[in-house]
Amino acid sequence: MATEFEIKPYPELWASLDMDVPRFDKARLMLGEAYAKTYLSQKKRPVGMAYFDNMIAEIHGGRIKELLAAKAEGRPVIGTFCVYIPEEIVLAAGGICVGLCGGSQGSVPDAEKILPRNICPMVKSAFGFKAGRICPYFQAVDFVYGETTCDAKKKTWEILDTMVPTYVMEIPQLKRQRDLDLWLAEVKDFKTKVEEVAGKTITETDLAAAVKIMNNKRKALQRLNSLRHHNPAPISGKDGLLIEQIAFYDEPVRFTKKVNALCDELEERIKAGVAVPTKNAIRVMVAGTPMALPNWKIHNLVEGAGAVIVNEESCIGTRYFKDLIDENATTMDNMLVALTDRYKEIDCSCFTPNDERITQVIKEFRDSKAQGIINYSLQFCHTYNIEEIRIRQACEREKIPYLFIESDYSAEDVGQLQTRIEAFLEQIGE
Amino acid sequence: MATEFEIKPYPELWASLDMDVPRFDKARLMLGEAYAKTYLSQKKRPVGMAYFDNMIAEIHGGRIKELLAAKAEGRPVIGTFCVYIPEEIVLAAGGICVGLCGGSQGSVPDAEKILPRNICPMVKSAFGFKAGRICPYFQAVDFVYGETTCDAKKKTWEILDTMVPTYVMEIPQLKRQRDLDLWLAEVKDFKTKVEEVAGKTITETDLAAAVKIMNNKRKALQRLNSLRHHNPAPISGKDGLLIEQIAFYDEPVRFTKKVNALCDELEERIKAGVAVPTKNAIRVMVAGTPMALPNWKIHNLVEGAGAVIVNEESCIGTRYFKDLIDENATTMDNMLVALTDRYKEIDCSCFTPNDERITQVIKEFRDSKAQGIINYSLQFCHTYNIEEIRIRQACEREKIPYLFIESDYSAEDVGQLQTRIEAFLEQIGE
Repeated sequence: MATEFEIKPYPELWASLDMDVPRFDKARLMLGEAYAKTYLSQKKRPVGMAYFDNMIAEIHGGRIKELLAAKAEGRPVIGTFCVYIPEEIVLAAGGICVGLCGGSQGSVPDAEKILPRNICPMVKSAFGFKAGRICPYFQAVDFVYGETTCDAKKKTWEILDTMVPTYVMEIPQLKRQRDLDLWLAEVKDFKTKVEEVAGKTITETDLAAAVKIMNNKRKALQRLNSLRHHNPAPISGKDGLLIEQIAFYDEPVRFTKKVNALCDELEERIKAGVAVPTKNAIRVMVAGTPMALPNWKIHNLVEGAGAVIVNEESCIGTRYFKDLIDENATTMDNMLVALTDRYKEIDCSCFTPNDERITQVIKEFRDSKAQGIINYSLQFCHTYNIEEIRIRQACEREKIPYLFIESDYSAEDVGQLQTRIEAFLEQIGE
Repeated sequence: MATEFEIKPYPELWASLDMDVPRFDKARLMLGEAYAKTYLSQKKRPVGMAYFDNMIAEIHGGRIKELLAAKAEGRPVIGTFCVYIPEEIVLAAGGICVGLCGGSQGSVPDAEKILPRNICPMVKSAFGFKAGRICPYFQAVDFVYGETTCDAKKKTWEILDTMVPTYVMEIPQLKRQRDLDLWLAEVKDFKTKVEEVAGKTITETDLAAAVKIMNNKRKALQRLNSLRHHNPAPISGKDGLLIEQIAFYDEPVRFTKKVNALCDELEERIKAGVAVPTKNAIRVMVAGTPMALPNWKIHNLVEGAGAVIVNEESCIGTRYFKDLIDENATTMDNMLVALTDRYKEIDCSCFTPNDERITQVIKEFRDSKAQGIINYSLQFCHTYNIEEIRIRQACEREKIPYLFIESDYSAEDVGQLQTRIEAFLEQIGE
């Protein structure tokens, strides 16, 4: 029962970006098909999702044109891989900060020609997208700003740098004052680099405006997340995740408006008792590593089994939007301190110790009225994989039904995962 | 053709350390057997190796008694996993700094009950030694001082800390001034912690003496390494590696004396034209991840095939001893700066970028008059595994015969490795 959907083709645009157009066009068709199957087959979707459907249709075309238009005006376009890179600074310089491709099995073989096989699929996928010239974002950015949040990324940037200029922000590994001092200096370096491309100095006014835009965006995502916590859920977990994924590509002011419009609709649905999907579906929260577009594997399986995902404790999820920047700081120095203070609240497993995350996972479980936690780790992600021990112990202590899944982007383990997920849901349902 | 050899049993001592004595005793017998087979079967060994043979015989007994005697006198006994932890500071406080167990497959299953399987075998082995109570060093230390040099170690310390007090030194990920400032502060924290256990403040005189002891130890190891570079090699690679491994357990002054005595003998052998093993053996250098005692897998295979290993570019190898501390600093602050300056020269792949290591590998290849490089990475070690790309490229550029091996502690890949190593040696010999 395929629904019509097409990711729009822009062959001339892609050719102008030195992409492998024939190959990318095939990937486009496959992604469109997967999207129709995963998303458009859903029943009783909020009408506000139409905007996000269209965003996917234009993700490799319309949005790329916007990036190139910005570049033509001398505005910086910066590609990033991590929620620790402060978008506010790029916005303040009049630029665009975008996520890069990294959520698809299709580019993994390109990476494995060079990189080791036994590293994170997200890192391999991202690297492969650049190596294969099959990601318009990689082709359009002025430079990439990586970070040191894990061994695989940190060392891969050295090799990526031979294909696209790649700078690195050092994220410290603890959060004492000496670490925050180093971090602040890194944020200032990032600002300098962005200003170089922009050919302008960021003023306090610029930064204040950017902080407000990003705070508003994060508030809209917080609002959406709260609405997903309503029982029964007014929107599917798949749609929730999609919006969190699109957050890394879309223009923030427009995106915020559309998320808020969707939230208005969801509030109406709650009032009217309209729920998606079936009432009494088992409510599951996902915690762990980010699910980059178009990684919908777990959501597909969980919601395909009749349950609903009501929260993503993830970088593509609450870690991206749970914290706001204090808007009261005035001088540039104080503003950058306030900004860094907000970023340090993101509780990535790259930190040691990382007790805050354990507490946060349990808090989100309670807030979301979930009935169980699926802890998801990308394969070979050492930090989340080992932190899993502490999350599991906390769930045991709190008597929270718990399932740990380590997976990659391939379809090989889908059958096995389906069995495990169904057994987990049954156990909760008993 | 087994030669008699026994790792001495100390069941009462082990029981007093709350060890799993029956299990450890079995491991002792197996290790003794492996040692006899690997080491005592070698022909024309230098007589100076007798000391190191005896050190192995006493490694779980006599040496442990020395540790406990120090503890009884209130001297700190600190366990470490990494060459970035400055032993000089422990020595200066009158204490003992020792490596911990971590080189054996035997303890890996203990770790895999808790830790993920797909992380570094050294980390799993070390953790398993503590979890299984089968390492007297783990049982004897006041505390463990870990570091943040890789994701697997960094996150494992959090779990290890529940079994033995484990502190963490943050090692930065770049080497700019701001990183060195943080590093110096970490070194000072370490000093404070060691002083707490020692119940005394380290003086400039204490530290100067300790620096001299460690510099002398490193010079002796440099001397040994230079002698190994003579063609034909006067000592086997297996024996060279063994001494580098024992360096992490033995008392430094005694060890230095014995290494120098061995070097005197090797100089005599060179003069007399006595070579071990066969003349015209193919000379191989090993680069990469450390080979912790009793990991002799690669050396066994390479030298079993008639070649000789003449250099280990590794933390258990040249990275441990290639750099000395400047002895001219006077005030405590300046002395600690000089110390940190020396430690920053260690070119672990945890740093990005790490160009110095690429240069160093090629330099050691030339210095050692090797004919090929075997780059060895422990399985799942992301940083060395990815840095492999740059080492390979450098070897291609320099036309150096090159073989990359990623392996764990199991015997499963021995047959396959033997085939690959023999093919590599044949290729060099052509």
